[in-house]
Order: sequence, then C-alpha cells, then structure tokens
Amino acid sequence: MTVVIIGAGISGLKTASALYKHGAKNIKVLESRGRIGGRLQTVTGYDGIRRYDLGASWHHDTLCNDLFFEGVDAGEKYIFDDDFFIYVDKERGRVDRDPQMRLEIVDREISKYADMEYYQKLGAKDVSFQELATRYLFEKRKYLTDDQIRYSAQVSRYLELWHGVDWTQLSAKDTYFGHQGRNAFALNYDTTVNRIADTFPSECIELNTEVNSVKQENNKVIVTTNDNEEYVADYCVVTIPQSVLELSVDHSGKKQSGRIEFDPPLNNSIKEAFKSVHFGGLGKVIFEFEKTRWDTTNGKVVTLAQTSEAFVDAIRGADDFDNLLTYLDKENSRMMTRNCWNQPLYFNNLAKEYIESIQNDKNKIFDFFKPALDAVLKSLNAKKSVINGMNDLNKKFDDPDAPVLRNIIVTNWTQEPYSRGAYTACFPGDDALDMIVALDKGQSSRIRFAGEHTVMDGAGCVYGAWKSGQREADYIAEKMNLTK
Amino acid sequence: MTVVIIGAGISGLKTASALYKHGAKNIKVLESRGRIGGRLQTVTGYDGIRRYDLGASWHHDTLCNDLFFEGVDAGEKYIFDDDFFIYVDKERGRVDRDPQMRLEIVDREISKYADMEYYQKLGAKDVSFQELATRYLFEKRKYLTDDQIRYSAQVSRYLELWHGVDWTQLSAKDTYFGHQGRNAFALNYDTTVNRIADTFPSECIELNTEVNSVKQENNKVIVTTNDNEEYVADYCVVTIPQSVLELSVDHSGKKQSGRIEFDPPLNNSIKEAFKSVHFGGLGKVIFEFEKTRWDTTNGKVVTLAQTSEAFVDAIRGADDFDNLLTYLDKENSRMMTRNCWNQPLYFNNLAKEYIESIQNDKNKIFDFFKPALDAVLKSLNAKKSVINGMNDLNKKFDDPDAPVLRNIIVTNWTQEPYSRGAYTACFPGDDALDMIVALDKGQSSRIRFAGEHTVMDGAGCVYGAWKSGQREADYIAEKMNLTK
Repeated sequence: MTVVIIGAGISGLKTASALYKHGAKNIKVLESRGRIGGRLQTVTGYDGIRRYDLGASWHHDTLCNDLFFEGVDAGEKYIFDDDFFIYVDKERGRVDRDPQMRLEIVDREISKYADMEYYQKLGAKDVSFQELATRYLFEKRKYLTDDQIRYSAQVSRYLELWHGVDWTQLSAKDTYFGHQGRNAFALNYDTTVNRIADTFPSECIELNTEVNSVKQENNKVIVTTNDNEEYVADYCVVTIPQSVLELSVDHSGKKQSGRIEFDPPLNNSIKEAFKSVHFGGLGKVIFEFEKTRWDTTNGKVVTLAQTSEAFVDAIRGADDFDNLLTYLDKENSRMMTRNCWNQPLYFNNLAKEYIESIQNDKNKIFDFFKPALDAVLKSLNAKKSVINGMNDLNKKFDDPDAPVLRNIIVTNWTQEPYSRGAYTACFPGDDALDMIVALDKGQSSRIRFAGEHTVMDGAGCVYGAWKSGQREADYIAEKMNLTK
Repeated sequence: MTVVIIGAGISGLKTASALYKHGAKNIKVLESRGRIGGRLQTVTGYDGIRRYDLGASWHHDTLCNDLFFEGVDAGEKYIFDDDFFIYVDKERGRVDRDPQMRLEIVDREISKYADMEYYQKLGAKDVSFQELATRYLFEKRKYLTDDQIRYSAQVSRYLELWHGVDWTQLSAKDTYFGHQGRNAFALNYDTTVNRIADTFPSECIELNTEVNSVKQENNKVIVTTNDNEEYVADYCVVTIPQSVLELSVDHSGKKQSGRIEFDPPLNNSIKEAFKSVHFGGLGKVIFEFEKTRWDTTNGKVVTLAQTSEAFVDAIRGADDFDNLLTYLDKENSRMMTRNCWNQPLYFNNLAKEYIESIQNDKNKIFDFFKPALDAVLKSLNAKKSVINGMNDLNKKFDDPDAPVLRNIIVTNWTQEPYSRGAYTACFPGDDALDMIVALDKGQSSRIRFAGEHTVMDGAGCVYGAWKSGQREADYIAEKMNLTK
C-alpha cells in the first residue's frame, strides 16, 4: 500500500482522485460510515423523489470557486439563490426594508463598526458578538431610534446561522468575513461526490472501516482498523473532521467512537492549536409540504429573536457599559428556555426554485417550530396556518389554502460520532488560523491532513476541502517523484 | 501679522479658529469671494425660506466623523437619509429589488470582483471602471442572465455620482471605497461654517481679497493681493482647492483668476503629484416644486443609462475581450450626444424628510431633465407628469395631481474660477495619495496646506478639510511655542 487516506469525504476522495491521476495506484480510502461523502449527504424526501442536502448546500465564493466551475462544466445543477431577506419579528411581523427603521442600513453600520474595531485598530480585545453589538447600540444610541435599538442587533444575528454558535459565544472578531461572490445552491452535492469517486477504482474505497490507530515507524505508517486489519503505507492522509481529531488529544484511555490513537501522539503545534478552536453546531430542519400554499417570490426568511421595550430602556438608561453587561447576563439566562423565538431562525423557501414536499420525533419538532413556521409562511402571504399531516400520509385535508406538512427531516451532526458538530467556530479570543497552519504542516512528512479545516482559502467550505485534497496529493506525488 | 490663511472655506476657518484658541492673535484669513464657506454654500429657494446646500450635503463616515459629533452636540440639524435605492430604466421602469434579476446582488458581486482584482492581487493594471465592469460581464456571462448582463453594470454606475467622472474615465482601482458608517444629510452646512467663524474675531477675515503671490524670504512669507496689499507673516496656510492650486504650476504667464504665483515655485513633489490627479465635476440641480405630488416613502432614485439588447448580444457573442473593447469604444462615441438617458442620474427625494418647493437657463435645464424627472416621479407613484410653472410664479394650475415645478437651482462649480471643478477624481493609473503626501508635507515649514485634498482620513469630505485645519494650526502652534 502506498497511500492510506482516512475518510471518504470530499477531501479524502479528491486526495485519492488526484493521486491516482498522478500515477499512484496503491491507494486505500478507509471510511467508517457505510457511505462516501462524509458531511456531504444527500437524502430523499417522503415522495422518494425530491432530494435534499443535509450537509453543505451551497457553493460559496463563486467568483473563485474552482470546484463550482468544474461542476458547472460537468453539467452539475445549481441555482444562484442569494436573495433579499425577509425579516420577521414575533410581534411586529415583517421588519425588512421598513421605510422608517431601515434596519438593513443599521445592520451594515454594525458590520462597519466591527471592522473598525478589529481591522482598523491593533490590539482590540476580542469579545462576544453580543457584547460588541450592544456596545454599538450603547455608544451610538443618540443616533438611533428606539426601534433601531430594539431590532437592528437582532437582524445582525443572522450571522449566527453562518457560524452555528449563539452570539453570546461567538467571537466578535470572527463574526464578519468576506464573501467572494454569490452563493450557488447545489442540486445536489452527491453528483459532485460521485463524479470525483468515479475517477479512481471503487476497490480503493473500504466502507464501514473505522480506523483505530495511526503509527509511524521510520518511513512507514501503519494504519490499524477496528477489525485489526493493518495497512502499511508510505503516506497517510487524515481527513476526519477537526472535532473528531480532537479526541486524539485525549489520552485518558476512554473508548470513543471515531477516536484515532496516534503513535507518536499528535505534535505540539496541533495540540496547542486545539486550545484556540471550538466547534459550532448548525442544524438543518427540512419541512416537506404537500403543496406550496404561499408565495415563491422570496427565497429567504429570517425570524428574529424576540426583543422587548425593556431592552431599549436598558440601552437608553445605562450610565455605563458595565451596567448594560449585567443586564445582558440576566437576559441571557432568561433566554435559556427552549422557544422558537429565543434565537434567529433562517428559512430557505425551497419552493421558490423547485418543488417542495419528510424523521425523528417529528411531532415534537413540529410543535417547536410551528409558531415561527406560521409567521414565516404568513410573511410569504400564506392564507392559513400549517396543518400537521405527517402522522397519516393518506389523510386528505379539505382546505385548499392550508399548507399541509407531510415530513420533517432533521440533521444530527452534533450527535453523530464521525461528525461531532458542524465546523470550526471561534469563541472570543480563539484563532482558527493556528490550527490551519498546524494541520497544513502535517503531523510529519508521512502523516498529512486534508479537509475543510486545513485550508485558508475556502476554510469551512466544500471547495476548500476539495482543494486541500489536491494539495496533499501534489505534496505526496512530489515526494514520491511521480512524473505525471 | 503672524499667520496668513488663504481661503475662508471650512479648512481655512478651522485653521484660524484653532490657531486663535492656541493663543495666536495676529491672524488674517484672505478670501477671494464675497462670502465665507468656500465650496460649502447654502442658498435659499424661491419662497425665500427653504434652504439648500450647493456644496457638500452630507456628513460622511458618521461612525468616526468628529465634525459631525461636534455639530450634533452644538444642536446642528441632520437626517440619516441613507435609504434603499429605486433604480429606474427608461424602457423597463423600476428595476430595483426585482425578484428575477436581483441586480443589487450582482452589483455587490461586481464590487467584490474589483476588490479581488486590485486588493487581493498585486500589480493588476488599472483600467477604466467601464472596462472592469465589462470584463466581469464577459468572464461571468455563463453565470448571468441576459437581463443581468444588460442592467447590472448600469446599476453599478451609481458610483459615478460619488466621483463626478464618467465610468470611461474613472479609475477602476479607485472606484470602490469604504464608508465608515451611515451618511447624514446636513440641514444646513452654513450653521457649521458660521459656528466655526464665530470662534475668532470677524476682523480677521478679509472678503473679496484675491491673493496674487506667495513669496518666501528667509523666515517670512510675503502674501500679495490683487489690490497690491502686502501681508508679511511668519506662516502661511494655503487652503485653495487643488484644481486652483494646479494653476500655480503653469508658468506661461497667462493671467488666470485664482492663480497664485509661488516664489520659489511649488516644490517638485507637489509638481510631480499633479501628474497623477485629475478633477471631476459633480453638478447639483435642485428642482423646486409647488407641492409634493408623489410618495415620500423612498428618498433615493437613480435613473440608469439606457442599454440595448445589442449590448447583451455583444457580451454573449464576443470571442475575446479585445473585440468587446472595440465595441465599447463605438458605443462610447454614440453616447456623446447630450441626453438625460446617457448617464446615471441620482435624485434625492428631499420631500421625504422636510418640505420641498429656483436661476440660469432654467427652461433648457427643464427640457433636458423632463423625461428622467417624469420617470422618477412615476417611480414614486406621482399620477401626472411635471408641469413647468417656473415662468410665471403667480399662475395657478388646476390639476390637483400634477407636480408644478417652480424653480431650478444649478451649481456652477466647474465654471466658477475659485472652484474649477469638484474634488479630486482618479483616472486609470492615477494615485491621489502622492498629492496628499506632498501637500501634507507642505511647500516649506512656513508655507503650509490645508483642505479636503490634503488628508487621508476624510479626503474629499468636509470633516477631512476641517481636520486638516486643526492639523496645520497644531503644527504652527508647536513651531511658535504657543503654550495653550
């Protein structure tokens, strides 16, 4: 065996594909799950036809996304679905593009405020995004109306949906980031995954094969699986999620699914870097309706977390910023109750672009989301509230205006042992760059890393993972003096 | 005389004010016009009550604009008038926030494309903004609809209204710039000008006094006026517009209003810097109506330059980018005809915020703008087209829905000898920074410069000019060992 790749996600598949193209024929991709794709997972709806991506849904940065360009040339489908956001407040209804409040314009000013704090000054202390946004409101209250104070920071919280972390935990320094062009909704990522997997022999992939240990002895890497199979390779590329890799740092001997024992242990720069990263959890819930009973003109709705007049009074009345922080702490603990209006929710109106229409404790999920779901569909001009039609798929409902919900599909990335959360998320003071630099350097010249968390350009994105696979393949090919 | 300041615009007044506060009492401000304020000029409408700023209208960068903060504390009025733009095409009518075209989203992508070209790469050649936008359309045509190709670059041309230069001349590198927060419409700038002028004795200001020459002899600066009056000073601060200062570089002996003869001549770094700046011309036309006969919900309307299907065909059919450039050259010469649909126009719906309600060849101006004006008012839901009621102010018009135009006020900054254009504008390859550095350094330790064109932060803005005045006052006070 020349190269063993751990993980058949997009980075592992791309590593194998590129190595094969370079002429390396002894490749093995070991995958713990019973399928390829990793966190790219396309599932089928209740009608057995419609398909949804539970993992990444978008090609980001489409001005410079080479995987996107390649996919388009290969005939893979996508939709540029960036759209004007509808913002819905529980009490007030639609608050987007309000001629009096103009919250989008204040939201843009908050982003500039963060930019000035962290990129036009040196040495500013990182705080939570909530603290930063509140400081903006406090400092600029003289220039803001009561309604702008009440709602604008809630609008800016749509960024939680990018990071998968509550704003009380999110690093203010890391909250805003640049987009390199529009986002393209992929239809669906399995076509990309399969296309790349098809570029090398399928025998190279071993499914349901969890790796137990990676041991380097001189110039060989010995990879041992759960079934005690040993692969002796010249190189090993580890592409497991960072949140799973973190288990390797724990040497308590506790048995944990997905944990790989490194021998020698992960090097110091990797171990140190784990101190400055955290992991978010971004869940996706797909609501499948029988028929579209709402407008499909707008594609994006965000429901805002509930606010109160008391918040405005606190901002207006605060003598100093510390008093405000005390108030916020109290508010935060009050918000711990599980309620669909305690955080922003982002609804993608898929019915806009193709046809909408299904798994866990669906009725509980339904109860949780129902108020927000009704508010969202109302903002899209639905005439009636949602009917739960999930428990008997054959039951007909007479009202032609009522949206009938037939299925809910929910991700479980945070519980699933080979994912353990979404992607890297920065808490205040974190720096994801340390880890990228440490993993990019590798454990050694023989034990390498690839994945969305090992690159600068495209970090956290599918194309970033894909590029990191190419990078490691090129590195190994050069070391192996492969001429192709 | 201790300090002679040339120009009683905001920078000259601030220099005098700050010097006076520092304890310098022998100050003279020489102003060629019969009024103070320079390019800040507030005029009165046809009813003798309503007032308009012909020069700067906005406080920009209000997150960090100290003049704005000071003005607010002094009770000066303003309105945060940033608003969602209405875009009007001659044939198609409103094209803003169109659910199919989503031009604002493509416009944002064009700005990111420029950013990637000039700030994420090194050594990219500067071209005209038209060439850059067209290259975007050409390279990305596969990802754009016909309508997006036709209209999106026209939307991005609203930036011409910031620079005062046609996109065929505008430096692509310089087109986009950062805003530090919202823009606040000033009501009106004369209150600011007068407030600053009131901080030092009015006898310090000499109006109608044009300076002929500035001569340095050892440690004295001799300033001579048109009336052959001589002021011998320790320091001289020149605050005239850069476009007027440029006349000093011409030593042909031609007599030109506003030209100052420097002896010794302007130093080499200043002379060299004039090779890399140009001047734009941003005209303002105020249309005063008898009554508001349209909606006041939206404050901003941009009429787009006319486009054609042929343009889309040219983009789609081009084999290479050079062919496209040839096509563009032809288009540009075709567009030389004077027509209100050959460039973007920016309409500020002042009726939105206070009450709206007239001088040159007003009827000609009316004829030029009428088609665009009607399209704009239609986009604001006016029921009838504009009636010219300027020639007899006493004449009544019966139709209660018709907007009756009573006055047009037009700026003449480009013809006026002490302005000679708007502010600095960059042509492809220009670099305004050279001039800022050269003027900030000064002609000598005795002959200094202030003005909106001598600063980095706030360049081209009122607060930038104001800050430069403080800077020069502080410089001179330190040299003079003033303790206050």
